[in-house]
Amino acid sequence: MKFVCSKSNLVSGLQIVSKAVPSKTTMSILECILVDATEGIIKFIANDMELGIQTVVEGNIVERGYIALDAKIFVDIVRKLPDNDVTIESDSTNKVTISCERAKFNLIGRKGDDFTYLPSIEKIDGVTVSQYTLRNVIQQTIFSIAENDANKMMAGELFEVDGENLKLVSLDGHRISIRKVKLNGSYPYKKVIVPGKTLGEISKILGDSIEKMVNIYFTDKHVLFEFDKTTVVSRLIEGEYFSIDQMLSSDYETKISINRKEFLDCIDRATLLVKEGDKKPVIISVTDGKIELKINSAIGSMDEEIEIDKQGKDLMIGFNPKFLIDALRVIDDELVDIYMVNPKAPCFIRDKESTYIYLVLPVNFTTVD
Amino acid sequence: MKFVCSKSNLVSGLQIVSKAVPSKTTMSILECILVDATEGIIKFIANDMELGIQTVVEGNIVERGYIALDAKIFVDIVRKLPDNDVTIESDSTNKVTISCERAKFNLIGRKGDDFTYLPSIEKIDGVTVSQYTLRNVIQQTIFSIAENDANKMMAGELFEVDGENLKLVSLDGHRISIRKVKLNGSYPYKKVIVPGKTLGEISKILGDSIEKMVNIYFTDKHVLFEFDKTTVVSRLIEGEYFSIDQMLSSDYETKISINRKEFLDCIDRATLLVKEGDKKPVIISVTDGKIELKINSAIGSMDEEIEIDKQGKDLMIGFNPKFLIDALRVIDDELVDIYMVNPKAPCFIRDKESTYIYLVLPVNFTTVD
Repeated sequence: MKFVCSKSNLVSGLQIVSKAVPSKTTMSILECILVDATEGIIKFIANDMELGIQTVVEGNIVERGYIALDAKIFVDIVRKLPDNDVTIESDSTNKVTISCERAKFNLIGRKGDDFTYLPSIEKIDGVTVSQYTLRNVIQQTIFSIAENDANKMMAGELFEVDGENLKLVSLDGHRISIRKVKLNGSYPYKKVIVPGKTLGEISKILGDSIEKMVNIYFTDKHVLFEFDKTTVVSRLIEGEYFSIDQMLSSDYETKISINRKEFLDCIDRATLLVKEGDKKPVIISVTDGKIELKINSAIGSMDEEIEIDKQGKDLMIGFNPKFLIDALRVIDDELVDIYMVNPKAPCFIRDKESTYIYLVLPVNFTTVD
Repeated sequence: MKFVCSKSNLVSGLQIVSKAVPSKTTMSILECILVDATEGIIKFIANDMELGIQTVVEGNIVERGYIALDAKIFVDIVRKLPDNDVTIESDSTNKVTISCERAKFNLIGRKGDDFTYLPSIEKIDGVTVSQYTLRNVIQQTIFSIAENDANKMMAGELFEVDGENLKLVSLDGHRISIRKVKLNGSYPYKKVIVPGKTLGEISKILGDSIEKMVNIYFTDKHVLFEFDKTTVVSRLIEGEYFSIDQMLSSDYETKISINRKEFLDCIDRATLLVKEGDKKPVIISVTDGKIELKINSAIGSMDEEIEIDKQGKDLMIGFNPKFLIDALRVIDDELVDIYMVNPKAPCFIRDKESTYIYLVLPVNFTTVD
């Protein structure tokens, strides 16, 4: 095999497929990137058996062929090459030469016959959404995936297509994040659970263009994302996702409208007094026209007032500050509405159209004065 | 005690003195910053008993007094405050309040009576140099200080003032770095060994202005650096530094002139093939008009040619790539001259005026073909 392509094309291609190279594995072939120039195009493929990514790199093929190369060393070498055309060549003994200007690297590749290509997915009933939108809805929900795998369903996000709507849901037992976006057409109903890892890696590869699109295809076991020259295939999490609707409620006793940035900065300051692993709540007292936010810890105490608009009852309620911060960070609105019932019932941060709903469970607290 | 000053002034002051707060210590008072507003100015002081830093922060004192505050929490709080005036207040029970806009933090400070102020140094026979120059000469030599304390002298740098010249020297047994700068006047002879840690921290505080100056004062046991509103006092390393001059030589058998950036990038690429801790040398073959650089490791091999100007004999010599990289990185010249004798003798990278001299010992290698 022999082909020539620019360093920058190589770097971009490698950055994309590297996302599917596992950091730890007992199968050393998974640590490789397959370079496949057998079909007249140059394809890079990585596959950790859960998530597989394939991308096409522009370049000139001199001799067709394929070879698997250790991902880490391949990426490191390409990154440090001069900014010029790079020639990659392999011979029948799997000796690989990477050369650029006067620099020449010799490596031993692997035959690549034991490399697993991406599963083939029939591309029917695809859903189309802009890269910008998909990246956003992922980033706006992914933080409330459960970190440990106690419940495998919680390690994924619900991906629901219903007519013109795409809905993403994640939950970890203490909170739920829901985002809805309008699609540019009506699609058949689909409901799958996509692993959080897949969504995390995809959101890093997706561009921020609202004009470049992603096509998404589903089968019973897999989801396929197709954009630019890249194909991402992931296994789905099997099972029935939680019934979200029965956890949501539009009843409230207290509703406040608050400046998002002020509220976020204030909670952020309060967390200074909380050591990692320590579960100190922030305590929020809602009264007419203002909230007072308090935190007490072994380090010290803080209190701060913020002006609000209030409807309904006064209330004192405690929260894990991280959960409020996570939600407030991914909302774009200048003012957010927060709906509460009592110190034991879930609180909802949501907009009028419910394009976003963040449910956060309060925590118990003891008042100290 | 009570005073008011801007958040930005506080942040700058804390950043400076924090450099003298030890990360690990058994004396908890050393983890504090002393806030001293007893004399009509606001001073912040930190002192790890080796290195002490004091700086003056502009602000309005309402009530004189002093208090010691845990450095980490003090810095964290101030950094997250809104960008506005901050009031810091302590009462007779050492309760400290830090307030800004509507945010109010309560902490417990320490009386500060067991805090050690900086030793007082008589300011005579000071040497003056620009902040820019001092920062540069430190950064251009500090990397060849020995990392472990096998020899306490190697953990410091020689600081020698001789008439109009300031010379800094560091060495670690495998290499020597020497930088000379002209001073703006003639000074009495001084020769001290300053701990590497002190120089490292100072170089982070110094600005990059060639107009702002640093005054340096020496005693038998201490060195004092005075710049802007900051005073840095450090213990010296006691003892007689190595006799450098007898290690230097101007004889050579081979002299090459090489493009610094090309050479640096090339060695940098070669190190990709060297795993951390593995002591693979780069092997350089000098012939007429070019050098060929080779490295062989378990990962693979690399070779690359670079055009040079050569005087003298052909030569094949091996180096620890890190040592060459460290020296080449801190030289500004586009072309560097490298002087060599044979594969066992030290190599010198130096300019004609010897404003810099980097001595690097070669390493043994076995040729593989």
